[in-house]
Amino acid sequence: MKKSFASDNNSGVHPDILKAIEKANSGHFVSYGDDPYTDEAKNLFKEVFGEYTETFFVLTGTGANVCALQSFSDRFNAIICPETAHINVDECGAIEHALGVKLIDVETKDGKLTIDKIEKYLHFKGDQHHVQPKLISITQATEMGTVYTLKELEDLVQYAHNNDLKVHIDGARIANAAVALDCTLRSLTTDLGIDILSFGGTKNGMMIGEAVVFFEKEDVKYFPFIRKQNMQLISKMRYISAQFIPYIRDKLWYKNAKQANDMALLLYEKLYNLNPEMIVSRPEANALFVRIDKKIAEKMQNERFFYTWDEMEGIYRFMTSFDMEKEDIEDFVGFVASFF
Amino acid sequence: MKKSFASDNNSGVHPDILKAIEKANSGHFVSYGDDPYTDEAKNLFKEVFGEYTETFFVLTGTGANVCALQSFSDRFNAIICPETAHINVDECGAIEHALGVKLIDVETKDGKLTIDKIEKYLHFKGDQHHVQPKLISITQATEMGTVYTLKELEDLVQYAHNNDLKVHIDGARIANAAVALDCTLRSLTTDLGIDILSFGGTKNGMMIGEAVVFFEKEDVKYFPFIRKQNMQLISKMRYISAQFIPYIRDKLWYKNAKQANDMALLLYEKLYNLNPEMIVSRPEANALFVRIDKKIAEKMQNERFFYTWDEMEGIYRFMTSFDMEKEDIEDFVGFVASFF
Amino acid sequence: MKKSFASDNNSGVHPDILKAIEKANSGHFVSYGDDPYTDEAKNLFKEVFGEYTETFFVLTGTGANVCALQSFSDRFNAIICPETAHINVDECGAIEHALGVKLIDVETKDGKLTIDKIEKYLHFKGDQHHVQPKLISITQATEMGTVYTLKELEDLVQYAHNNDLKVHIDGARIANAAVALDCTLRSLTTDLGIDILSFGGTKNGMMIGEAVVFFEKEDVKYFPFIRKQNMQLISKMRYISAQFIPYIRDKLWYKNAKQANDMALLLYEKLYNLNPEMIVSRPEANALFVRIDKKIAEKMQNERFFYTWDEMEGIYRFMTSFDMEKEDIEDFVGFVASFF
Amino acid sequence: MKKSFASDNNSGVHPDILKAIEKANSGHFVSYGDDPYTDEAKNLFKEVFGEYTETFFVLTGTGANVCALQSFSDRFNAIICPETAHINVDECGAIEHALGVKLIDVETKDGKLTIDKIEKYLHFKGDQHHVQPKLISITQATEMGTVYTLKELEDLVQYAHNNDLKVHIDGARIANAAVALDCTLRSLTTDLGIDILSFGGTKNGMMIGEAVVFFEKEDVKYFPFIRKQNMQLISKMRYISAQFIPYIRDKLWYKNAKQANDMALLLYEKLYNLNPEMIVSRPEANALFVRIDKKIAEKMQNERFFYTWDEMEGIYRFMTSFDMEKEDIEDFVGFVASFF
Repeated sequence: MKKSFASDNNSGVHPDILKAIEKANSGHFVSYGDDPYTDEAKNLFKEVFGEYTETFFVLTGTGANVCALQSFSDRFNAIICPETAHINVDECGAIEHALGVKLIDVETKDGKLTIDKIEKYLHFKGDQHHVQPKLISITQATEMGTVYTLKELEDLVQYAHNNDLKVHIDGARIANAAVALDCTLRSLTTDLGIDILSFGGTKNGMMIGEAVVFFEKEDVKYFPFIRKQNMQLISKMRYISAQFIPYIRDKLWYKNAKQANDMALLLYEKLYNLNPEMIVSRPEANALFVRIDKKIAEKMQNERFFYTWDEMEGIYRFMTSFDMEKEDIEDFVGFVASFF
Repeated sequence: MKKSFASDNNSGVHPDILKAIEKANSGHFVSYGDDPYTDEAKNLFKEVFGEYTETFFVLTGTGANVCALQSFSDRFNAIICPETAHINVDECGAIEHALGVKLIDVETKDGKLTIDKIEKYLHFKGDQHHVQPKLISITQATEMGTVYTLKELEDLVQYAHNNDLKVHIDGARIANAAVALDCTLRSLTTDLGIDILSFGGTKNGMMIGEAVVFFEKEDVKYFPFIRKQNMQLISKMRYISAQFIPYIRDKLWYKNAKQANDMALLLYEKLYNLNPEMIVSRPEANALFVRIDKKIAEKMQNERFFYTWDEMEGIYRFMTSFDMEKEDIEDFVGFVASFF
Repeated sequence: MKKSFASDNNSGVHPDILKAIEKANSGHFVSYGDDPYTDEAKNLFKEVFGEYTETFFVLTGTGANVCALQSFSDRFNAIICPETAHINVDECGAIEHALGVKLIDVETKDGKLTIDKIEKYLHFKGDQHHVQPKLISITQATEMGTVYTLKELEDLVQYAHNNDLKVHIDGARIANAAVALDCTLRSLTTDLGIDILSFGGTKNGMMIGEAVVFFEKEDVKYFPFIRKQNMQLISKMRYISAQFIPYIRDKLWYKNAKQANDMALLLYEKLYNLNPEMIVSRPEANALFVRIDKKIAEKMQNERFFYTWDEMEGIYRFMTSFDMEKEDIEDFVGFVASFF
Repeated sequence: MKKSFASDNNSGVHPDILKAIEKANSGHFVSYGDDPYTDEAKNLFKEVFGEYTETFFVLTGTGANVCALQSFSDRFNAIICPETAHINVDECGAIEHALGVKLIDVETKDGKLTIDKIEKYLHFKGDQHHVQPKLISITQATEMGTVYTLKELEDLVQYAHNNDLKVHIDGARIANAAVALDCTLRSLTTDLGIDILSFGGTKNGMMIGEAVVFFEKEDVKYFPFIRKQNMQLISKMRYISAQFIPYIRDKLWYKNAKQANDMALLLYEKLYNLNPEMIVSRPEANALFVRIDKKIAEKMQNERFFYTWDEMEGIYRFMTSFDMEKEDIEDFVGFVASFF
């Protein structure tokens, strides 16, 4: 069976994750997270992010973002994000629906938020006519396949904190970012002073499960209520928690993301050799953006589906997954080549 | 390991469900429900509930209720439910939070809504000062362990429809109700004219997964948006759908609920023999309510946890699960007996 | 023209209020409350309630309640109130709509909340499955025409504060209550430790305008945003503020409420003489509840409208207004007498 | 006393409006709009906009917009508007707070929405991951002082309707637009197929009061509930309605707006003569945008307040009001001239 380059969530579940689920299926445990699997998984997160951090498990990426952002925003606040942000474009308005706050989305070319884009919205601070910016939300790796450098993040966090803004990372693909930057998860988050993190699992080899990581103990006080009322508290929690055990303990997060990133690079190299015109930019994580003539692209999509990213510009996205091998790339490149 | 009588969600996953998950873990599939497992599961629901019904899969019982109720309510509507309803008491205000509507909760002794309780709230219809009742929401089997008879449901539905109210069933334990009534799922829902159903899976041997069943095609039009913005759309949907395949096809829903109900009856009989004073009422589904002296109950709870139902009245709840056997009941009765 | 006994908002505007509006209509002033009329009115409130209090003007009673309650509640909180509360019954779900929180309404006979009714909802504190009670909201004078004594309020406030609950008074008719209790507004609020007050103007001789009074400076920090986003900030604020100047400075609040209360008592006495069976109870503020045969009541309502309070019980409400005189009462009693 | 060029809401109330309020202050009337003043005012709106239209009175411009937009949007919808829109910038997030929907704001230079800006957001239609655009909201005259031509509106409405989008006009200054275009209110709205209108009163000589105009009878069905739950239903409605009687019947809307527009033109001409460099563009309604050196502007603002429009670009706004005369303009021009 051909593997899909449409999205990293078209893949299945890593065998070790499945084994962990099976292992958790023994006997009765208290529900809603008061079980040994959840304890173990939460402790593993402390080892990764630091002893003062607190982690909670939720069900979907959108759920992680909503719960994380509710934790730091009041009803009259605004959240500043890039216009490409998943929370802005791909969550059917979940943030506005659940939180009632405004997303201030700023134009970007590469999916990255920059200080100069934030600045003009801070003039509104203190004026009763305007929503009050309280958070910035950035995605790492971004929806455009780019990765913020540690220096870029450091500057953003410093600017945000100087201006009384909290920093949220949508880390649906934070593993891919850490691999791309060749750094630890902690150096990407805790060490930079990030305030809250949506930590992705599903796109990188898990079945169902995301985590919300808090970096200050006092911030978590109301999170259990926030998670429950946003429909993210599952009764048989152990089956989510159990997945995170090998994912963190055995560094599956790293191995899976490394494989996906490597395969994206291989795909890039081979397509570049095929036709350098096609390439929009060298992939930084596991997404490659290519330029294809619309008619050809449509023929290709009919055979093997992938996403149109910018219909006007004729840009398409190929994503690699944790379970792809060299042969999958070669096969796909052959498929692409057959259209030219 | 001792099995828990605290709740039916303390149990694990039925082996056939786990096998179905494993089987689904092969290769790549389009995400968000456009996969063959989801197609198959949805078709199985049509076989059970009728060809005009449409089913969508969601993640939690609270999520199923929120999405179902959003589908039929506008922002100025109210939903009438018993005060004991899960949506009223146990969902941390998810309905009010996500929908912004009022729950009108009416007093009940046995968890059942009755026509005379609804009546007085219909005087408000058409008056701009009052929220407008649009739905009644009932739980079957109820949170009090009781089961509406088919006649009771029929009367409620007729009354509701005559008064321009839709009928929602919170069916977290609808399997236990069908077993208790010895009727088909269809005769409990479609045949009675129910408008929308939260169909439970997790409490009856599944891992994660609930379904929302619509009985009229035109009602589903906006459900995909509602599900997404309420954080109930999982990317790797096949792992939810796959669980429903044996659950429906192999009548696991029936077998599991039958076992749980039978064990509740066995527990009742044995405890009745031990001490008839202890029994509040004969169980109709898989919950048995008992009266225990507070001090004794606390000692018992320290050893094997179960829920206090009414602290004032000294009433406690024992729940049986799909995976309990005669020996589990005997063991638990022995445990209880040791305190007297 | 006959005066209406349907509600105290059927009356017009006191001539001194109208004069104050006319006086404010001279020249240009900065909008949204940064004008000398607003300053003066706010200072008058400080004189009444204490120098540490802060007052904001809003447009409607529902608006005052929503803004007041938003100031003290987070999205997962609940507000405990009597089932008869205006916020629960008469505001078309504004609280749930604007705040997304649950109202826990408790049964009462006389419209008063009591400690024993609150108690059972505090068991839920700290449990993630349940909304968290954060406020109690009481109405003074109540919707049932009764008035909490100072001792009753003192006990409620103490109980609430001991249990980490804030106390909100819906004071749409607080003037009538102060008159009834023969006490100052301060002794009814500030001195008892009330946390926030919706202070009514419209029902007692003003044209449009209510106030929200805070008793601790730090609580007001975000109120300007809350008022604006709840559509309660009027641009030409001076015309609201100007009304409060004679209302407070010249004790119009007292004179008007005294007249309304006195007339209610006179009405009661005369109807009692007519037929003691008709009387439900002696009025404490400006509402008199009477028992009339349904058929007769309908005939009366066709000629001069008044509200049915309890259709089942055949109870009706007569309200007196600030502008009623002895002759209005005699005329109305004559009207009533003509039906018997 | 000097008149303010900061905003048209710094002015007071037209004497005829005040007289209408005084006249309404006679005796008792049923509250909440069931009174003869409201009937008369509603009928006058029918005469202006057409016999099939229905008008409701509300309290604030933000309230009018929220209620109007709630009438046509479901919780998963989006509203497309210019980034300069009052609903987007100046209402403290009221739309997101009250409705939970997303505002998609598009960049504009002149405050006008254009078809090419809408187009890209329609690709999302039908995709469950994206909020569904349901309305466009435009402001006439715009916040940038510009006025859509009838042809521009006609094209926008046709495009919107062809794409299943409703059209809302924020008409806080629709009177100024009608004067600028020298057309009737009906030709600007009903005749173009507009779906709903926020009709402003306060900025053009009224005290408090806006209207929401519906153009199809079936659309109004739920508006009374929407108005009430959004805190826009005033009990003593006659005092709002009464203002609209001379405003519509005596064409005060026209006279007032004509005067304000004429004075803006006079101001423009005189400042152009003083220094043509200062002028950003010729005013179309009653707002003039000027370019001033920041330091000078600050000195001016200290003496007579006016708003900074674009701090980066050094652009400031002067607004004229209905009650300004030639002498006020000359005085203000003299004031400006004294700084150069």
